[in-house]
Amino acid sequence: MKDVAVIGIGKTAFGAFPTQTLRSLALEAIGNALTDANVSPHAVEAFYLGNFAGPSFTGQNHLAPYIGQAAGFGPIPCTRFEDACASSGSAFYHAWQAVRAGLHDVVVVAGVEKMTSQNTGRVTEILAGAGDMDGEGLAGGTFPALFGMIAQRHMHQFGTTREQLAAVSVKNHANGAKNPLAHMRKNITVEQALAGKMIADPLTVYDCSLISDGAAAVVLVPVDQVGRFNERWARILSVAQTSDQVALDRKADITAFPSVRQAGLRAYQAAGIGPENIDFAELHDCFTIAEIVASEDLGFVAKGEGGPFAASGATALGGTLPINASGGLKSKGHPVGATGVGQICDLVQQIRGDAGERQVQRNRIGLAQNLGGSGGTCVVSILGAPDVR
Amino acid sequence: MKDVAVIGIGKTAFGAFPTQTLRSLALEAIGNALTDANVSPHAVEAFYLGNFAGPSFTGQNHLAPYIGQAAGFGPIPCTRFEDACASSGSAFYHAWQAVRAGLHDVVVVAGVEKMTSQNTGRVTEILAGAGDMDGEGLAGGTFPALFGMIAQRHMHQFGTTREQLAAVSVKNHANGAKNPLAHMRKNITVEQALAGKMIADPLTVYDCSLISDGAAAVVLVPVDQVGRFNERWARILSVAQTSDQVALDRKADITAFPSVRQAGLRAYQAAGIGPENIDFAELHDCFTIAEIVASEDLGFVAKGEGGPFAASGATALGGTLPINASGGLKSKGHPVGATGVGQICDLVQQIRGDAGERQVQRNRIGLAQNLGGSGGTCVVSILGAPDVR
Repeated sequence: MKDVAVIGIGKTAFGAFPTQTLRSLALEAIGNALTDANVSPHAVEAFYLGNFAGPSFTGQNHLAPYIGQAAGFGPIPCTRFEDACASSGSAFYHAWQAVRAGLHDVVVVAGVEKMTSQNTGRVTEILAGAGDMDGEGLAGGTFPALFGMIAQRHMHQFGTTREQLAAVSVKNHANGAKNPLAHMRKNITVEQALAGKMIADPLTVYDCSLISDGAAAVVLVPVDQVGRFNERWARILSVAQTSDQVALDRKADITAFPSVRQAGLRAYQAAGIGPENIDFAELHDCFTIAEIVASEDLGFVAKGEGGPFAASGATALGGTLPINASGGLKSKGHPVGATGVGQICDLVQQIRGDAGERQVQRNRIGLAQNLGGSGGTCVVSILGAPDVR
Repeated sequence: MKDVAVIGIGKTAFGAFPTQTLRSLALEAIGNALTDANVSPHAVEAFYLGNFAGPSFTGQNHLAPYIGQAAGFGPIPCTRFEDACASSGSAFYHAWQAVRAGLHDVVVVAGVEKMTSQNTGRVTEILAGAGDMDGEGLAGGTFPALFGMIAQRHMHQFGTTREQLAAVSVKNHANGAKNPLAHMRKNITVEQALAGKMIADPLTVYDCSLISDGAAAVVLVPVDQVGRFNERWARILSVAQTSDQVALDRKADITAFPSVRQAGLRAYQAAGIGPENIDFAELHDCFTIAEIVASEDLGFVAKGEGGPFAASGATALGGTLPINASGGLKSKGHPVGATGVGQICDLVQQIRGDAGERQVQRNRIGLAQNLGGSGGTCVVSILGAPDVR
């Protein structure tokens, strides 16, 4: 198998963009990534698109060739990958597999979602489709409710506090305020977070990620060919995709995500490292409790210690393990299908030292965790600087 | 790269099944394929699901782990592939790539669609999402209209007749009447077909494929491991996936599909054969004209000769090149996401000599062509008997 490099990244701003379409957002991100990589559209051999619910939000389906042909690609395989909120994480996993196996040399992976403007009144219902619509969904268990239950149980079992949840939100808002492409660039205080409108007890509006439009794209090539392209590349150390029950009520323990643990273990093993080697991470904070649980499932701290870890400042920009230096889904925004590839762009920006005000100090090895639904899918990716082996 | 075998096939009947769900259909097909292959769910290393519009038809999204976990798979990668009507053709392509590259040894590919029962009133609108909703779709150009225009132009340019279109329909109904799993098992006459209710001139209801529920699944392993499983396997000689403009109005010539030509050329080249070596074929007859055009694009006859070819009897069960011995989308049914893998099951059944009343005589090399929309995607697969190299 070959080593694989990310040689180009491109993102749109995340936010609510009434004059943009799903396709125009995707084309902007792809164009930026191709320019960054110094790759012509004609050189692209396969196109991997992550999108969760474009047909439900906009009516348009058959999205991969619809976008790929407008991007100027040739008659190449153009495929859409769907795995709920981990859709573009899954597209990234399959693209990496193809390049490392020698099936393709130059591929583009993009993620996109257009959640505002059309069908916005149905957004909660459309998102609920990532859960079990014949079970929890039928009972009104939308995602804020499901993650509210996860938070309640975590508080009950481990003494996690609302202040610790708020600490995640405050940190991610502080980071997002430094990110020019973030959806909600404003600092908040713990007091504000605690006083936020209650959505699903104990989660207030400040514990919930945003409904956003946006797109992200990356260009992958084998490391042995990086010389032809952008020399400011990052090395993919490993990618792991796993699955688990989609319905929360099928899980033995709702305070942990087996899919995240498995993906973490596989990614660490394939990269030949452990959680102690990770310098910084982008975790899937669809809700603040999700970041806390992920920090436990990925072995950054022991089970139950994610709350105190978040409140200690260790995960802040200047801490020992910065988490969501980008602002995370909470502040950067969460255009569902774009989130996985967006995280990869964030890792590469940090590894290149291009993250400006939100640059982390130790930036040699970064981890991204992209969660689908309440853990039915997880993709964990570990990237490193070119000289990390 | 390794040679890859199909060691198990499983299908549901295609039809309207009010008491079945999208998931129950998929599970039935997967269970049949695993039993046929003699493979335990725990042995499966990755799950590839083709589905076009499950979320729009049923509200349920995140379909790959939703089905995969219920099938008893472990925490493996479970991914949904969407490429309109070629969704499960695309899933098959990616699964074949992964096995031939040595990334996985035992994988399941399934396709499913549940088109009746829920949201049935919106079926034409949901299907139109496979075209350009900002262009042709906005102008009312649903698929019967688009293929009606293709037929009109083909008649104008090459003298193709309504009788030749009807010949495709009569043949496919005759074949489907012999298929116990077909949706519409009835023989029709050319006179009946010509007198059918006009849908989009010149296409009558007898020129249009069916709105069906159904699922299909296959199990793939490297040929060097077939000894562990079912010995009645078929060899995958090649699979090619291509893309082209999604909007019909972006095509220079609407009487041909460049994506089909390209996929055919690539598949022939990779298999080291030509159209003259194909013994029988399953072509994507979403409309009768599509079978005629595909028989030209794949080189079975010269451009413009598809109509006379169909009317000559050459493509009938006892003809020189039987096409759609299964009954095709016209009579077997067209549960969109299931169609691609369903065609693969049909090829394997013929290669095994298990097709009963509809068994073709020359059955060593079969070709399946799965079209997305009006040619935005095409997947061509060529399968052979174990001793074909």
